[in-house]
Amino acid sequence: MKSHTHYHYFNTKKKREYILITDMVEKQVNQSGIKEGLCLVSAMHITAGVYINDAEAGLIADIEEWLQKLAPEGPDYRHHRTGETNGDAHLKNLLIGHQVVVPVTDGHLDLGPWQQIYYAEFDGRRRKRMVIKIIGE
Amino acid sequence: MKSHTHYHYFNTKKKREYILITDMVEKQVNQSGIKEGLCLVSAMHITAGVYINDAEAGLIADIEEWLQKLAPEGPDYRHHRTGETNGDAHLKNLLIGHQVVVPVTDGHLDLGPWQQIYYAEFDGRRRKRMVIKIIGE
Amino acid sequence: MKSHTHYHYFNTKKKREYILITDMVEKQVNQSGIKEGLCLVSAMHITAGVYINDAEAGLIADIEEWLQKLAPEGPDYRHHRTGETNGDAHLKNLLIGHQVVVPVTDGHLDLGPWQQIYYAEFDGRRRKRMVIKIIGE
Repeated sequence: MKSHTHYHYFNTKKKREYILITDMVEKQVNQSGIKEGLCLVSAMHITAGVYINDAEAGLIADIEEWLQKLAPEGPDYRHHRTGETNGDAHLKNLLIGHQVVVPVTDGHLDLGPWQQIYYAEFDGRRRKRMVIKIIGE
Repeated sequence: MKSHTHYHYFNTKKKREYILITDMVEKQVNQSGIKEGLCLVSAMHITAGVYINDAEAGLIADIEEWLQKLAPEGPDYRHHRTGETNGDAHLKNLLIGHQVVVPVTDGHLDLGPWQQIYYAEFDGRRRKRMVIKIIGE
Repeated sequence: MKSHTHYHYFNTKKKREYILITDMVEKQVNQSGIKEGLCLVSAMHITAGVYINDAEAGLIADIEEWLQKLAPEGPDYRHHRTGETNGDAHLKNLLIGHQVVVPVTDGHLDLGPWQQIYYAEFDGRRRKRMVIKIIGE
């Protein structure tokens, strides 16, 4: 069994950003030399997410609005008693998920035609880490 | 390390359907010959989900109502400017998740007594693909 | 390839509890002898979850309130016609997720500095099972 681990750092200009990372992940699959296996893509912070959906600007704006509606920003989170102001970002992480597992088949990410991998930053303007781990043969 | 990949196609009669697939996945585990490993079950479209919960008709109706409430159908999604009408299906996919990873132990899916695997179609009446990938030994 | 499977039983005093399990999972990684791989942590019931977020009491109270808001307790679930009273716990499971996959790197859980693994019980006061499965080398 082979394994390959890669860390990527983000430092977004905006508080919230949705960054297309499919090519970056595919590049790591290539570098791993793994032909058949599983590829984990996981945010290493609790105020960011990783999800798979469409690379369409209107939909990304819809996702943003939806996350704001179901996990709104606000002053009232108990978590803010610690001095933090990002309670909503923790809930957005839980709502959209912080990781995906993608099959690796024949040396490539085995995604459907519209499936794109996104890193979703919910509390940016600081250095954040993501891990890509591939195991297989 | 062994690996086994299987694609299954759905073409539902209704727009939304919840299809029990535990036996189909178990059959692939059997065919793989893998005794100890992990089994990924993942929708390859961004308007369908895969989840684990109870095979009880009332609960499935509750899940449907809940998804409609938190990710409602409607004309107002920005995504619809592309000509699509399925903005809600994308959000339902994000809410319920598009994949599960199930342990394979002693040659079988290692599920609890009430855990059943479901394919959840949110924009059906067309050909959709799902992947089952098992790795292990 | 090596694999290691461990079952843990919970029997909470309260209906809902959020139990920090990072150390328990790390201990299983140690016992497995696996240096590079993937670790699946998964509830084996459909009324409990496993998630990764912050070990901060205020935030946990925020998560509880949020889950109650988006998947409220109530008498009206169709699932209750079976005699059950835990419809909300099924939806909370779907909202927060029932499993996480954590990378194992250099013999340890490869988590970010604030990432903690939690078992979230939504229908306790009974014996519930969780599985930890590690594969790798």
